[in-house]
Amino acid sequence: MSTSSRRLARRTERLKASEIRELLKLTARPEIISFAGGLPAAELFPAQEMAEITRRVLETEGCKALQYSATEGDPALRNHIAERMNTKQQTRVTVDDVLITSGSQQGLDLTGKIFLDPGDVVLCESPTYLGAINAFAAYEPRFVEVDTDDDGMVPAALEKALQDNENVKFIYAIPDFQNPSGRTWSLERRQALVEMAHAHGVVVIEDSPYAELRFEGEPLPALHAVDTHDNVVFLGTFSKTFCPGLRCAWLAAPADLLEKYNMVKQSADLHTSTLIQRQVAGYLDVYGLDENINKVIDVYRERRDLMLGVFDEDMPRSVSYTRPAGGLFLWLNLPAESSGRDLLELCLEQNVAFVPGGAFFPNGGRENTARINFSCMQPEKIVEGSRRLCKVLQDNLG
Amino acid sequence: MSTSSRRLARRTERLKASEIRELLKLTARPEIISFAGGLPAAELFPAQEMAEITRRVLETEGCKALQYSATEGDPALRNHIAERMNTKQQTRVTVDDVLITSGSQQGLDLTGKIFLDPGDVVLCESPTYLGAINAFAAYEPRFVEVDTDDDGMVPAALEKALQDNENVKFIYAIPDFQNPSGRTWSLERRQALVEMAHAHGVVVIEDSPYAELRFEGEPLPALHAVDTHDNVVFLGTFSKTFCPGLRCAWLAAPADLLEKYNMVKQSADLHTSTLIQRQVAGYLDVYGLDENINKVIDVYRERRDLMLGVFDEDMPRSVSYTRPAGGLFLWLNLPAESSGRDLLELCLEQNVAFVPGGAFFPNGGRENTARINFSCMQPEKIVEGSRRLCKVLQDNLG
Repeated sequence: MSTSSRRLARRTERLKASEIRELLKLTARPEIISFAGGLPAAELFPAQEMAEITRRVLETEGCKALQYSATEGDPALRNHIAERMNTKQQTRVTVDDVLITSGSQQGLDLTGKIFLDPGDVVLCESPTYLGAINAFAAYEPRFVEVDTDDDGMVPAALEKALQDNENVKFIYAIPDFQNPSGRTWSLERRQALVEMAHAHGVVVIEDSPYAELRFEGEPLPALHAVDTHDNVVFLGTFSKTFCPGLRCAWLAAPADLLEKYNMVKQSADLHTSTLIQRQVAGYLDVYGLDENINKVIDVYRERRDLMLGVFDEDMPRSVSYTRPAGGLFLWLNLPAESSGRDLLELCLEQNVAFVPGGAFFPNGGRENTARINFSCMQPEKIVEGSRRLCKVLQDNLG
Repeated sequence: MSTSSRRLARRTERLKASEIRELLKLTARPEIISFAGGLPAAELFPAQEMAEITRRVLETEGCKALQYSATEGDPALRNHIAERMNTKQQTRVTVDDVLITSGSQQGLDLTGKIFLDPGDVVLCESPTYLGAINAFAAYEPRFVEVDTDDDGMVPAALEKALQDNENVKFIYAIPDFQNPSGRTWSLERRQALVEMAHAHGVVVIEDSPYAELRFEGEPLPALHAVDTHDNVVFLGTFSKTFCPGLRCAWLAAPADLLEKYNMVKQSADLHTSTLIQRQVAGYLDVYGLDENINKVIDVYRERRDLMLGVFDEDMPRSVSYTRPAGGLFLWLNLPAESSGRDLLELCLEQNVAFVPGGAFFPNGGRENTARINFSCMQPEKIVEGSRRLCKVLQDNLG
């Protein structure tokens, strides 16, 4: 039986192997300097400490750490998370507000599942996170991109989008060091967003994987902290502050929504790995996260500075770029007529890679953009790769 | 904002906290002898070996085991799985046919996701697995239960169901030591199923968590092995043969479907925990599964025998029960007018618990049934609990 004769769900028509994914497979070649991925710097992962923690967990808890466990997740881990959110992001959540997820990607999928019927509207930044587009797309919504500048969604554009569209189910935003743009929302824009969302009876989904990776300046409160209407779902993760390969993340949600998230989480995978949760909770008990995060911040700041140093010297004037104060990414705006995709092909000939920005616009049409990752290449490669990238742009942009 | 004023997806109307779940919360009381759960015997989990394996994995592979990894899963683990399926279940699969999932529950969820539009039909055994009902229900299908006897689905009933229903997307079956009934399909029925499915252009979803837990008799080939039309998706797991708390499972599917499964897996959680996959692959490298499985089989066989010994002496004649040749469950058929739910309440007064069978019929109506687990209570509790259960039935059934 061939694909064409199998009867699949309508949503699968939206799934197609992307051209870009095929191009990006080339970036796995060892000679490539890749600014394409979103990988944290693996050399910073505490492998030895994790082995020690695993020994302790299995010695003290034995088989319980290998047995089925409750869908909502490990209470000790959820308590660590609530305390950390309150300390670092100015929220007021308790252990009872938290559900452990198998990565924030699962939080996005569950969000689509509880909110979206086909044709419903998702409001999002423009550009927005590709993984969120993919997760939500499985539930067949319509995406409405809201104009976004360096301070976040433009309030007038958001208000208009809320007024012009029926069936808006939620507003999806990444307020700190956004993937892909590297931009951070101002406090005023945060306040405006939660008030407008409340006024229109629309939930806010706050995706916050990067907030703790701030290189300079003062941390801003999470949308969840600014909101006074119990109307924000917060997605957090250990993937960028600790180890992504564990697939351990969480969401904090209002009680009525948390109940639904729990039910769909149970039908999606019963619960996140008991052992992984005990490993993370054990690590937090013994070591905490601060030391590791401080190391990560120092390394990423240096890499961002090296990259911006080269860009400031060599980038053609027709290209503008963001100067992120944290996170893993910066963003290029290329001349209107140029194509990030074509430039990637030219860059691959010079063994340097990035992600063309068009994929981050759910409705397409902004091919003259690029996402550049600065977290996972060593300093000398950051410099060399940035030089090559600028050279290709110099040689090929009008 | 209250639940009633939030606008959620239509599918959430199907999600409600079940009465049974509330009743079963009582079974967590330490004085309860519970035949309600589906838990493997935790005392058999190799905790110490897992600590040793984790040390090795993190020592030899360092940070790579903590980094993001490919959606399809670890090649070494997938290779182990393919070899084991071919050896134990007579299939002919390769590493390329296998996708690692976060528990088989995820395999079920992804199956619903790629096949089901609202109103599509799922054909299933009657009774069938509650977790599958919940996973599929999120995609709003109609369930059609096919008459099932001790040898599997009745072919005439299956043929009629295939003819009478439009938009049948797949047939869901658990051919070995089924949850909840404990029944196993005959070879003839397996052959009839795959031929009929092929003739009607309908995929078969084979859920096979228990096949390796056979207490006696010869193993039968998987549906995937019997099929010659590349038309069966096989769901396997380490939850019952190793440790469920890891959440490590897999599916093997025809290439065109595997591509879709990969895409929805990526949008659901990117990939299953890298560390967990390396831990399981490492365990299989060093220890293999056979020794552990043989221990599990000996323990569960003894427990089943103890339970059946009591039932054969004390069970009222009006109650019939299955005699599973493997797995974790057996099944009671109570007199037509009786209610498993009412009997559970009476049993809880005697500190013994089971799951009323009604929940295993997606369309309801068979409340005079019960699922009994025999894997996770110690021998003396199996005997004492079985006696109490029989006493309650003796005292309350006409």
